[in-house]
Amino acid sequence: MVEIVETQPERTDLPLVVMPVVVASMIEPFKRCFGLLENVARVRMYEDFTLDEDTIVARCDGADAVMVIGFHCTDSILERTHAKCYAFGGTGVASYINLEKAKAQGIRVCNVVHYGDHAVAEHTMALLMELTRHVGQLDREVKAGDWAGNDGYELFGKKLGIIGLGGIGQTVARIANAYGMKVSAWNSHVPEQVLTDCNVTPVDDMNELIAGSDVVSIHMPLLDSTRGIITAENLEALRPGTLFVNTARAEILEPGALLKRLERGDIPAALDVFEHEPLGADDPLCRIPGIVLTPHTAWRTDGAYVGITEQVVQSVAAFFRGEDFNVVV
Amino acid sequence: MVEIVETQPERTDLPLVVMPVVVASMIEPFKRCFGLLENVARVRMYEDFTLDEDTIVARCDGADAVMVIGFHCTDSILERTHAKCYAFGGTGVASYINLEKAKAQGIRVCNVVHYGDHAVAEHTMALLMELTRHVGQLDREVKAGDWAGNDGYELFGKKLGIIGLGGIGQTVARIANAYGMKVSAWNSHVPEQVLTDCNVTPVDDMNELIAGSDVVSIHMPLLDSTRGIITAENLEALRPGTLFVNTARAEILEPGALLKRLERGDIPAALDVFEHEPLGADDPLCRIPGIVLTPHTAWRTDGAYVGITEQVVQSVAAFFRGEDFNVVV
Repeated sequence: MVEIVETQPERTDLPLVVMPVVVASMIEPFKRCFGLLENVARVRMYEDFTLDEDTIVARCDGADAVMVIGFHCTDSILERTHAKCYAFGGTGVASYINLEKAKAQGIRVCNVVHYGDHAVAEHTMALLMELTRHVGQLDREVKAGDWAGNDGYELFGKKLGIIGLGGIGQTVARIANAYGMKVSAWNSHVPEQVLTDCNVTPVDDMNELIAGSDVVSIHMPLLDSTRGIITAENLEALRPGTLFVNTARAEILEPGALLKRLERGDIPAALDVFEHEPLGADDPLCRIPGIVLTPHTAWRTDGAYVGITEQVVQSVAAFFRGEDFNVVV
Repeated sequence: MVEIVETQPERTDLPLVVMPVVVASMIEPFKRCFGLLENVARVRMYEDFTLDEDTIVARCDGADAVMVIGFHCTDSILERTHAKCYAFGGTGVASYINLEKAKAQGIRVCNVVHYGDHAVAEHTMALLMELTRHVGQLDREVKAGDWAGNDGYELFGKKLGIIGLGGIGQTVARIANAYGMKVSAWNSHVPEQVLTDCNVTPVDDMNELIAGSDVVSIHMPLLDSTRGIITAENLEALRPGTLFVNTARAEILEPGALLKRLERGDIPAALDVFEHEPLGADDPLCRIPGIVLTPHTAWRTDGAYVGITEQVVQSVAAFFRGEDFNVVV
């Protein structure tokens, strides 16, 4: 049985937007913003999840625009469907749609931006606090009858070094300030006003930032210019006991360098992103004592879903109105 | 083998301070502030932990002051030792030393205050974020090869209701504001300036506060006037799905009321304090689905230990100098 939601099905005079796939958590947020397309386009949303290419192509038959949620829009799909606008429900669209090919075919591609600043910043703090207060571990112990507990590490008065002071890094900086942390950041392109607003001290030398921090957290986007920007040599600057958190992308670090550094066992680390995802239970990272791992869930919140769905729908509405919204190509 | 640390052992002209017992995590913090007693008193600290009363009494032989860390200073111990000042390393000293008896014997008793505002506030956030982001649970799942993950609940824009806006509650309010939460508090004795500084809206009716909150957190001290102040009827005001955190004292709630409310299964709760501690693995609280439990560790941080040890040493130094510092009786 396939669940399909259609808006304004009788309005065949309007263009058709197809969502051949949707992830379950976004169904309700999407429904709440379809009103933005009233009298602009009708929507057909397929609620059952599939990655079968033939099914996706068949569902897109007759679509003027496609919302790309949760699947890779391969070159083959682009060739077999005939929409003129593809709206991707994420930031790093280049990994999901061939932008050169889309451009050559005269297709518009849109993405969404900054939807996850709070989601990712809060997950960063959640990961950091599992390193400092061990709630997950203590919960298991108490329920098993072990009351001994352990000592926590106070963030108040400690030094946070942020690598990448964009929307997420700035949100983390503001929260860390409220904890009473002293915040520094490495980032070459931040306006003075942002540093003042976020109470952040800029540090030009990455090794100096890392060596001077009690906690290091990565918040750069993955770009050609940031790929591998944190090297094995930079990780040598970590003092033993420094807490390390990455909710950005694993590829921002030199391949293999983090595992090698963590294997020395003196850096408590919490990671949401990995070189190969999904991470297997046999991955050597899983064997690092005290490491905390989450399955790339930092972006997945109620608030982020609202932001994504609104922007995806707005970008399609703008397309049919002849306007621009989050246009990538 | 018994490890003993003595400061200025040759200065038998100085009064003697004995620590018959110390908890391991405080040994180094204590050593770092013994300098405050230089030329004021010599210290003898026994580093091995014991709760044997005869051993404690024997160790206190000849003591002019006793630092009471990690043991109950019973009436019997008070009778068999002959110090004139007992400095307790905690806030709720009345549970550890009979104040009436001490007063009758002309003994000074000191405690420590506000040492744990940051420690407890940060643990509150750690408990809350395990409810919203499930890091402990996700970490177990990833290491077991389960990558599915789950959705987080964003604190940004949500409503926090604080019951008890003292030092800890105010610290929580400031942090929650940085997350973008809207903070209200129930507390009848808070100066206007505190509400403004912490960006907190006062709510006089406890049911109104609870019903209007997405997260409820308790931060009252346990006093005769606060014991059982949150009743079963108040807990009825919790809307299904409201997150509930208690890092204060279980006795602030009507006995048994919280368990009864949580057994309905619609309130995700995280607790650090319990009516009977240590909590047994067979306690019905352990069977509430999704509950998060820690073993009364909110106060246990590096920063709190520094605060406790400094205040204990200062209170003893003040006693020998004829001054007052944290004097309870």
